[in-house]
Amino acid sequence: MNETTPADARPTGVTAPAGFRAAGTTAGIKASGNRDLALVVNDGPDHAAAAVLTLNRVQAAPVVVLRDHVADGRLRAVVLNSGNANACNGAAGIADALATCEAVADRLDLAVDEVGVASTGLIGDRLPMDVLLGGMDDLVAGLTGDQSGADAAADAIRTTDLVPKQAVAAGAGYLVGAMGKGVGMISPAMATMLAVITTDARVTPAMAHEALAGAAELTFNRLDVDGSTSTNDTAVLLASGASGVTPDQAEFNAVVRAACEDIARQMQADAEGVTKRVAITVRGTGGEEQALTAARVIGRDNLFKCAMFGSDPNWGRVLAAVGTAPVAMDPERISVRFNGHLVCADTAGTPDAREVDLSGPDITVEVDLGTGDAASATIRTTDLSHDYVHINSAYSS
Amino acid sequence: MNETTPADARPTGVTAPAGFRAAGTTAGIKASGNRDLALVVNDGPDHAAAAVLTLNRVQAAPVVVLRDHVADGRLRAVVLNSGNANACNGAAGIADALATCEAVADRLDLAVDEVGVASTGLIGDRLPMDVLLGGMDDLVAGLTGDQSGADAAADAIRTTDLVPKQAVAAGAGYLVGAMGKGVGMISPAMATMLAVITTDARVTPAMAHEALAGAAELTFNRLDVDGSTSTNDTAVLLASGASGVTPDQAEFNAVVRAACEDIARQMQADAEGVTKRVAITVRGTGGEEQALTAARVIGRDNLFKCAMFGSDPNWGRVLAAVGTAPVAMDPERISVRFNGHLVCADTAGTPDAREVDLSGPDITVEVDLGTGDAASATIRTTDLSHDYVHINSAYSS
Repeated sequence: MNETTPADARPTGVTAPAGFRAAGTTAGIKASGNRDLALVVNDGPDHAAAAVLTLNRVQAAPVVVLRDHVADGRLRAVVLNSGNANACNGAAGIADALATCEAVADRLDLAVDEVGVASTGLIGDRLPMDVLLGGMDDLVAGLTGDQSGADAAADAIRTTDLVPKQAVAAGAGYLVGAMGKGVGMISPAMATMLAVITTDARVTPAMAHEALAGAAELTFNRLDVDGSTSTNDTAVLLASGASGVTPDQAEFNAVVRAACEDIARQMQADAEGVTKRVAITVRGTGGEEQALTAARVIGRDNLFKCAMFGSDPNWGRVLAAVGTAPVAMDPERISVRFNGHLVCADTAGTPDAREVDLSGPDITVEVDLGTGDAASATIRTTDLSHDYVHINSAYSS
Repeated sequence: MNETTPADARPTGVTAPAGFRAAGTTAGIKASGNRDLALVVNDGPDHAAAAVLTLNRVQAAPVVVLRDHVADGRLRAVVLNSGNANACNGAAGIADALATCEAVADRLDLAVDEVGVASTGLIGDRLPMDVLLGGMDDLVAGLTGDQSGADAAADAIRTTDLVPKQAVAAGAGYLVGAMGKGVGMISPAMATMLAVITTDARVTPAMAHEALAGAAELTFNRLDVDGSTSTNDTAVLLASGASGVTPDQAEFNAVVRAACEDIARQMQADAEGVTKRVAITVRGTGGEEQALTAARVIGRDNLFKCAMFGSDPNWGRVLAAVGTAPVAMDPERISVRFNGHLVCADTAGTPDAREVDLSGPDITVEVDLGTGDAASATIRTTDLSHDYVHINSAYSS
């Protein structure tokens, strides 16, 4: 054996940690002929699992089934399809999601409730079960712990993502790998954010849940294009324990967060129709929660987002938006910085405010609401572009 | 005198009721050379007045001044400019708004606090006071109770409105006239909704306030494109008492509401970048307030709005949006109708759901959230189009 591994070929994705196999195949759910069925298997020795699921009251069938199957803190596999969300299909949709789990369980000799399921695509159409199940033998046959398995799985969960999204982060004696698709709130054409995070650390289900929930709150949940929360949003963490290392909780939290942050940044960069990546930081209100609320209000304002698309340093849009936020502020002492340049001080424009250059792809917006409170929070959002409208104007037709 | 009045020349606008004069002129605030300064004068015998002003915490100087001047329930004139919002200019902005009122008061022999003021345009630039005051003699000289005065005033408050907006409604022995611009929430390029309503009914300030507040809530406040609330939103009602008729409060409320509804529909029809007018009605939740909240959540969802632009009957967008509304619902029993056709029943699609024709300019969306509650509420919104993005991407630059 004399192979060398180039620097950019460091293992990444869900098979980077020990104890995992993955696969992706073309079942035919998508008309395009692109891959549309993925599988991640945890070969143990542990099978701890946790999930963070959509807060939308209208929940897709796979979300309902996954919540049930992960309730005991254990999963041995997760099967995911793109091209159809299996949402709003009533009891038939639940039956289809269960049948999908069952097809995996049969082939891997697992119990049905050891298999999680996730879907992304159009809402309201029944899953083509004959097509999906027809791809299952090929999917299972393709399972591998090599990079190619992770790559195929990450590819198969894409909808309109331009590139697959994978990450790896190293802990003290263990690894965390991840794959994600979309969007959720950042590239809403796809209407859903899916992520599978794997680790060979030895952790309890409670440790897994704390790490995943905390990471999701600070990464995926702070990407915000339009406030939409999909019926299908799903993030799952699987822990194999294959490294034999039981990490410190705080250190584990940080490593999981790093992997999720990497995926979230890839989502922001790849979001459809996006020409600007905008980071909005708010301080000077009534603590971090209020800072987060105010940053979301600005990040969701269409007038602000259109101004960003136009590289227009129209700080008045920031003032008009933040003035509607239900948070503490001194309306006479608000300041705004674009890319570090002070454009508004004490709620009035600075002399050169209209001259700030926002032509680059990355824009920072810093807002101080004037109360003197030091706590801050940051939301990442995007501009509102012609392409956003184009992509989303004919999604189902 | 042998002139005849054509049927479509029925007096309309702020001079339709007795006791009012109006004017509009080009002071030169706008680079375009279009009219930019308007005046409405109440010649009495009464001078009752009421105002409904923006709830934004960041409030433009004219809003602060108008609130102060109308606090005693009396105004004899309102001066309005377009082309500059006089917002976020600190104490200097307040001084400019007061100087504008003073210039009118001097020429009409009024007290300064008998003059209201309103502005619309870009936030953050100082008013060019020499230019504005330079147009004041011409403005006052043009005051007339004829239709031409109302027409000139309605024209002068336009920003990017394609047409002036005027209305008249007849009560039992009195008239209500109105002019409006914009948009506020419907064509947010202009960032502001201004409206002046006049009547020759004899009403107290309290009666005027009840009628205006109620009408605004049911008309202007139920137009909702993007949830934006401008720093300058202003609606003023002036009552001259010149008819000698003291109306019944309920009847007066209805007539004022009719005039405001007319203006609001003109705003919806004229909103920039709009290709669809969408009325969203929600029922089956926990009462009218919750129905209103749910309708707003749908109407503000960019994915839904893009689907409307594309005439795409993607009812999944409605379900995904309404599922995030903080209102009572039975998530398994939601129904949706597009243009009267049932597209979703019991949270699942109907067989022909994708075939509904949404190609016309008017679309109705009816959502039943399944609780059995009969109360309903309707929000009027628009689609999210390429032109919306284009218009708002370079507003200040």
